[in-house]
This record gives sequence, structure tokens and C-alpha cells, in this order.
Amino acid sequence: MARLKERLSDIAQLASVNALLEWDQEVLMPAKGADARAAAIALVSGLHHQKLISIDDDKTLSLLRKDVETKKLKGEGAVMVTDTWRAYERERKLPEAFVRELAETTSKAHLVWVEARRANEFKRFLPMLRKIVKLKRKEAELVGFKKSPYDALLDAFEPGLTTEEVTTMFDDLKDFLVPFLKQLQSVKGKTDTKRILGTFPLERQRDFNRFVAEKMGFDTAAGRIDESVHPFTTSFHPSDARITTRYKAHDLMYSVGSTLHETGHALYEQGLRAEHFGTPLGEAVSLGVHESQSRLWENNIGKGAPFWKYLYPKLQAAFPEPFRQVPLKDFLRIVNNVTPSLIRTEADEVTYNLHILIRFEIERELIEGSIDPKDLPAIWNEKVKTYLGIPVPDDRLGVLQDTHWSQGLFGYFPTYTLGNLYAAQLYAAMERAIPNLSKEIAKGALSVPREWLRDQIHAKGKRYAPAELMKRVTGEYPTSRYFTEYLKAKYAAPVA
Amino acid sequence: MARLKERLSDIAQLASVNALLEWDQEVLMPAKGADARAAAIALVSGLHHQKLISIDDDKTLSLLRKDVETKKLKGEGAVMVTDTWRAYERERKLPEAFVRELAETTSKAHLVWVEARRANEFKRFLPMLRKIVKLKRKEAELVGFKKSPYDALLDAFEPGLTTEEVTTMFDDLKDFLVPFLKQLQSVKGKTDTKRILGTFPLERQRDFNRFVAEKMGFDTAAGRIDESVHPFTTSFHPSDARITTRYKAHDLMYSVGSTLHETGHALYEQGLRAEHFGTPLGEAVSLGVHESQSRLWENNIGKGAPFWKYLYPKLQAAFPEPFRQVPLKDFLRIVNNVTPSLIRTEADEVTYNLHILIRFEIERELIEGSIDPKDLPAIWNEKVKTYLGIPVPDDRLGVLQDTHWSQGLFGYFPTYTLGNLYAAQLYAAMERAIPNLSKEIAKGALSVPREWLRDQIHAKGKRYAPAELMKRVTGEYPTSRYFTEYLKAKYAAPVA
Repeated sequence: MARLKERLSDIAQLASVNALLEWDQEVLMPAKGADARAAAIALVSGLHHQKLISIDDDKTLSLLRKDVETKKLKGEGAVMVTDTWRAYERERKLPEAFVRELAETTSKAHLVWVEARRANEFKRFLPMLRKIVKLKRKEAELVGFKKSPYDALLDAFEPGLTTEEVTTMFDDLKDFLVPFLKQLQSVKGKTDTKRILGTFPLERQRDFNRFVAEKMGFDTAAGRIDESVHPFTTSFHPSDARITTRYKAHDLMYSVGSTLHETGHALYEQGLRAEHFGTPLGEAVSLGVHESQSRLWENNIGKGAPFWKYLYPKLQAAFPEPFRQVPLKDFLRIVNNVTPSLIRTEADEVTYNLHILIRFEIERELIEGSIDPKDLPAIWNEKVKTYLGIPVPDDRLGVLQDTHWSQGLFGYFPTYTLGNLYAAQLYAAMERAIPNLSKEIAKGALSVPREWLRDQIHAKGKRYAPAELMKRVTGEYPTSRYFTEYLKAKYAAPVA
Repeated sequence: MARLKERLSDIAQLASVNALLEWDQEVLMPAKGADARAAAIALVSGLHHQKLISIDDDKTLSLLRKDVETKKLKGEGAVMVTDTWRAYERERKLPEAFVRELAETTSKAHLVWVEARRANEFKRFLPMLRKIVKLKRKEAELVGFKKSPYDALLDAFEPGLTTEEVTTMFDDLKDFLVPFLKQLQSVKGKTDTKRILGTFPLERQRDFNRFVAEKMGFDTAAGRIDESVHPFTTSFHPSDARITTRYKAHDLMYSVGSTLHETGHALYEQGLRAEHFGTPLGEAVSLGVHESQSRLWENNIGKGAPFWKYLYPKLQAAFPEPFRQVPLKDFLRIVNNVTPSLIRTEADEVTYNLHILIRFEIERELIEGSIDPKDLPAIWNEKVKTYLGIPVPDDRLGVLQDTHWSQGLFGYFPTYTLGNLYAAQLYAAMERAIPNLSKEIAKGALSVPREWLRDQIHAKGKRYAPAELMKRVTGEYPTSRYFTEYLKAKYAAPVA
């Protein structure tokens, strides 16, 4: 077991090294360094792959696996062995030539996608998309699956979850959201969201964002806050987890929303147990659960009345203009405003998931082979019209908006909505466990929700599969019910 | 040969990855990340070592080496094979257990040294120093040498140079410097160096330093300028070379001197030919020659009248206070002021080399076994008194001031003075080759010296051994003569 841990630690260190190479690339690297950096990343990825596929060369892992089968090894040790075997199996099933072809194709495809989006021309991207879909279908075959090839891809991001389960949850969600949105649209008065715009010096925005992140419990001695075009969180170790955010001079809430979100991710990374670094017990359980942490802070807490009861006076003191002119009630209405829009990343809490449903339905069918890539713009535009009620003027604002497919990330999109569903389910459980939760948050005692999440989720690592973890923490397997209840409660007043 | 190049490129990429891990550690890393980072660096170093010692596993390198011996392979190809063999041989001669012991010892020793320096107590450091000296003597034995074990250590930093050659050059230098300093001291009037102090907002200091670096030709699209406690230059590839500098609010020249120095290093790295990346033809030839580039810009150009004839009006415009009150002549006298002092890193052009001579003489004898580590403080203090004419009040300002020995860097110190000697010799050759050099510099045409250095030095990589390169560029093997002539000319006025 000690030997296994040592090897896992080496493998994790290589992943961390790549994470630093990528972080530096996004945040700091000079433009001309791109080619050399790509080569360095490719080299380290290759070494990571080699270390992983040779982990059982001396049969240590196989022997431990037998101990798990015969129940000689139980508990955390068993989790470590089983999950490592899972990762090893998956990696081993993909021949090096295939991995290289996929990496080269997606690397080229990303550039083609950038061009196609700039030119607003889906046709330019079509041949690459076709090739990627073919490769991903091949990957599903190589990895193996029971019912849908999409299962094999989904499993890489949300271990154990099946296409069938997601479809059920998402269909339920759709059945609620589409009429709910129409209802909201029909009754709500016009909200003047421009009232919270102003002129916010960057240095003071930075200070405020840092204050918020630290208040949430982000440890700046074990992480950094920087800036990048697309905000993200990365982690090399629980002692060094980094977030980025982005600023608009005229829109303070643009950066605050992104800081709440990324800090939610970072608290998960800083909350993993360092003594388990490299082993499954020291890793986040899934992308969906990761997203639940960011969404819970960004939305369930960060768009709620208790949080702003605490923070709004501080915001008003730091930026009297325009916030002195905007009562808390109006501010909350503005940050919770719902308006169907074309771009996923700018969507509100209600419409966001409709954006994801569109992508999930399309990519599932692409991988299952029931639609042809050439028909994507038409399918996309029709779904947007049906679900969101708005026409798509062009592909740049439509099917070409996201980078994921160009990078071969099929099975990734659903984890965004899973995050929202999990967040609502977790928040409801937290409210049951901590009856005075809202009062604590309103006092600024953000350590109360943070420590609960740390105990219930972060410190557990991959001890349980995502659905199992949700069951243990909330008493129920994942369901869309808590999310729809949450939306109904939040929008009760304007809807009624 | 293609196979060899590919392997060398992988090995170089791993070195670059480690360079990024270290750069980030010095410049950005949060405090708590230290242990995980140390582990990542150790892992990548180990992979680098493994790749290097297995480079001849299929005998490609051995076969190419035969081709060099039989003159079938000549020119650049031969250089590549011969130098790679040299690195491979050196690496191979050190057993892994030895490398690990040395790494662990120096890692611990560094912390002990920090403590000992803080406590101002050499005795605390003595046991570690004893152990390191023993290990470095062992390393010299393992690597092999002809006359002095110090040869084997020196060779790692200045390939081909012998202890005997350094001793000759340095003795010549000492014979000149000691009486020259006394003479300077006896005649020079008091210079009020405080006249150039003031209050310099950091943001404007940063702008000015960036202007200077870019004017020298530092390509900020292929590098970065950051801040760290100890300024340094690192490079991952000619397309990404980074410098750091440091600022004092009251002393502008503190940062400018360090920027000139580090940019000199960075121009070398950016000037290496990218198509040779990873091979000896794409690497700097030695630490001494590297230091010659930084010193040439910092001192020979950067403390000279022509440079400031161009730059001083700009400095005065950016910082009217106090520079409007200081005529150029006085400014030059201040930046060239000579005063013996205790700390090497704060020393002027004349006394700096006496600090190095002291360290060289001591470390050579330590490695040759002719002095005992316990006697270091006494030996140190006596040499400082004799060469610099000042008493050493305590070990913190004496033998404990530098980190090098704690890190096992024996044979490194001489390269600082070699850099000064080479710089003077190169500058004299440049003046002969470009008769109007001073006029060009005074016009701000810094591309003139930069392009000459790029052609003569940077683009050559390791094509020639350091001494051979100096011979080809300057017509003479390395000598201290040009440096002493340079000092005599510079200080002629105040001395006369």
C-alpha cells in the first residue's frame, strides 16, 4: 500500500506540474512562449500517461485488488485501490496512437473553431467536428459501455452516472423550466439592471473581491487570486490552490460573481486532506460536485438576502456611487433578474440550465449517432427558440459559442447543471442541519456553511461515488426537485 | 542525429519545467505551497536525471561519438555529440544514491544556514558545511580530475577552465586591485552618494525600468519583468525568458542597476537560436560568459558616460526630484563611487572582485583539503582585513553572508569575477570592431552593442568552449589585463 501511495503521489505531482504550466500560460506567459509551452505540456502529459499505465507493472495493484475482492482490504484502503484501478483501466484501454491522434486533432480543432467563430461560419468547423465526434465515439467503444456510448464519456467527469439517469433528471427539469420561464416572463415587471453600473476603479474592485474571497475562507497563504480572460480555478495541492477573476470597470458585480464562483471551487481544493494528496481520498469526487460548490456560493448563498444583508452595507461603503441610491431590495431584484439570452456564460440561474439541456441533448445524440453534425445549426436554433423563446441570429451567438466540443469535451456540459441541482439539494440539507443558517450568514459567519461543506464534502475526497455521497449527505440520491423548489421559492413574489 | 535531437529536446523541456516551478516559487507561490513544490521539483529533477543517463541506452550517442572520432562527423554535429557526451558522462558518474544524499543534505543545509545567519553563529552551520565539503570532495573524485579536485567542480560551471588558470588570472588581479584600492582611498575626495536618493513612486520606477529593459532590446513578448527579493533571470526557451528586479522607494538606482544586470542575462537567453533549443548549440556556453553579458550592460555600458549622456535627460524628466539638482558629472561620480564594504552584493566594481577572490581562495582550499571548515571565520576575517582594509564585526556580515556553500555551489563564485574580466575584454574588442561605439550609445542606439553581442556570443551557443570563444571574439584567451586597464582608465581622473 505504501508503494502504491508513493506512485500515486508521483502521478499527482506530474498532473500538478501540468496544472502550473497551464495556469502560467493563461495568466502570465508572454505571447511568443506558446509553442514551447505546448511542447512542455505534451511532454509532461506523456510522462503522466506512462506513469499511470505502468502503475501495475510489478502487480502490486493487482494483488491489492484481490485483497479488496476477498474483503481482506476494506474502507479507505479499498476505495484507494478500486478507484486507482478504475483510472488505470480507462487509461490502459486507450492505445497511445489513439491518445496522440485525439490530442493532435483537438489541438488543431481548437484553432479552427476560433477561426470559424470569428468568421461566423459553422461550415468551417464542420470537418473538424465530424472528426472529433468520430474519435469520441471510438473512445467510448474502447472504454466500453453498457447502454449508451455517451455513458463512457460522461463517466470520465461524473463517475458512475448514466445517460439514462441524467436524461431523467434533465427531462424533469425541462418540464418545469420551460413553462416556469414563460410564466416569469408574462408577469414580471421590467427591472432596470443598469442601476448598479458605475465607475469602479480596478484597484478598489480587487480589494473588495479579495475581501469577499477571504471572508468566505479562501486561504491566501495557500493560494492566489489573479486575473485571466476566462476565470478558472486550478490547484497543485491543498496548500496551493489558485483562482482567477476578471474585471469590468463599469460593472462591479461581474467580478464579484466570478470571485464567488471560483472561490467556491477553491474552497473544495483547499479543503481536501493534504495527507491523502495524490490518492483518490485526496481528490475531488466529480466535476458535478465541484460545480455544486461553486454554484452554492455563487447562487444559493451569493444571490440570497441573508448574504447581502451582511455584505451590502460594506459594498455601499466601498462604492457609494451608485449603491447608496439602490436599496437592498432593488439590488437583490437586479442580481436575480431573469431574461432569456443567447450566451450561456451570461445567463441567469433559471435560463442557464436550458442552455445546458440544449447542449446535452445535442451531444448525446451526436455520440449515439442519431444526428449528423452538419445539421447542428438548425437543431440548435430550433431548440433555443423552443426552450428559451428567442431566435438565434447567427452561429457565433449560437452553436459556435462554446469551446468545449472543439476540445473534445463531450460529457462535460451536463456537469454544469448537475452542479446546480446538487447545490440546491445540498443547501436544503444544510438548512435542515443548521436551523439558524440564514441568521449566521446574515451576521457574516460564512465559516458556518464553509465548515459544513468541508466536513460533508471536501474532506471526504472520493470516499464515495458522487450519487452515494449525495445520498449520505442529503438523504436522497440526486434529484432535480430541490432545485425547482428553490427557484419557485425565490421567484414566488414576482410570479405571484 | 534526429533521434538525439529529439531526446535532447525532451531533456531540455524537463529542465525548463523545473525552471518554471522554481520561478513561480520565487516570484508568486503562496507560502504554504513550499513543501509540495519541493516535492514536485525533486520529482522533475529525478526524471531529468533518468532521461539524461538513459540517453545512450540504444547506443545512438556512442555510434555518433565514433563518427566524431573518425572525423566522419564534423562542425556543429560534432559539437552537439561531444558536449552531450560530456554532460552524459558527468551525470552517469554520479550514482543515484549520491545525488539524492547531496540533494537532501543541501536542502537541509540551506535551512540551517538561514538559521545560523539569523542567529549570527557560524558554529551552527559548521556541521552541515563539513558534510557538504565532504560530499563535494567525493563528487570531485567520482567525476575525476587531473590536478586539483576543485577542477572537477569548476568544470560544471566553466567548462574546460582549470584551477591553475583561474588562480593565475586571479593572482594577477589581486596584485593590481589591492594597491589600486589603497591608492583610490588615499586620494579620492568624499562623494555624497545620498544626493541621488529621493522618493520614487513604485509605479513610475516600474515604468522607467521597463523602458530601460526594452530600450536594451529585451522582448517583452518573449519574456516578463517581475519582482523578487533576490533578482534573477530564468529562461524556459528563447521565446520565454524572464527577469526579476527589486525596488527601494528611496533609491531608484537600486532597481535600475539590477534591471541592467538581469536584462544583460536575458538578452543572452533571448538571443540563443530557437532552432537549436535543447542541443548544446542552443545553450549558453558557461556561467562566466553569461555573467559577462550582465556585467557588460550593468557596468561597462551602464555606468559609462555615453549611456547616461543618452539616458540621464530622460531620468531627469521622469524624476525631476532630485536629479535636476545633480549634474550628469556628479551623477556619474556617484554611481561609480568606490568604498570597501562588507557585503559582496552591495560592492562596487573595484571591490567586488576582492570579495570573490576571498571566496575562491577559501573554497579551493576547502575542496583541496588544506584548510579545515572550523577555521573559516578567522580566515575570512583576516582576508577581508588584508584585501579590503576593513574589520569584520560578525559572521552575519562575514562568512555567513552568502547562500552558495549551503547549496553545495562550490566552483560557482569565480564565474562572477570571470564575468567581469570577460566583459572588459569583450567591450574592448567591441570598441575596436565598432569605432563609433560610444557615439552610438550616446545616441541611444543600444541595438549596436546588442547586435554585436548577439552575433559574436549569443547565437553561437556552445559552439566553442568559453576560452576558445573569447579567443575567437577578442583575439586573446581570457586575461585580467583588459579589466585592469578599464579600471585604470575609468578612475584616472580621481586617482591623478
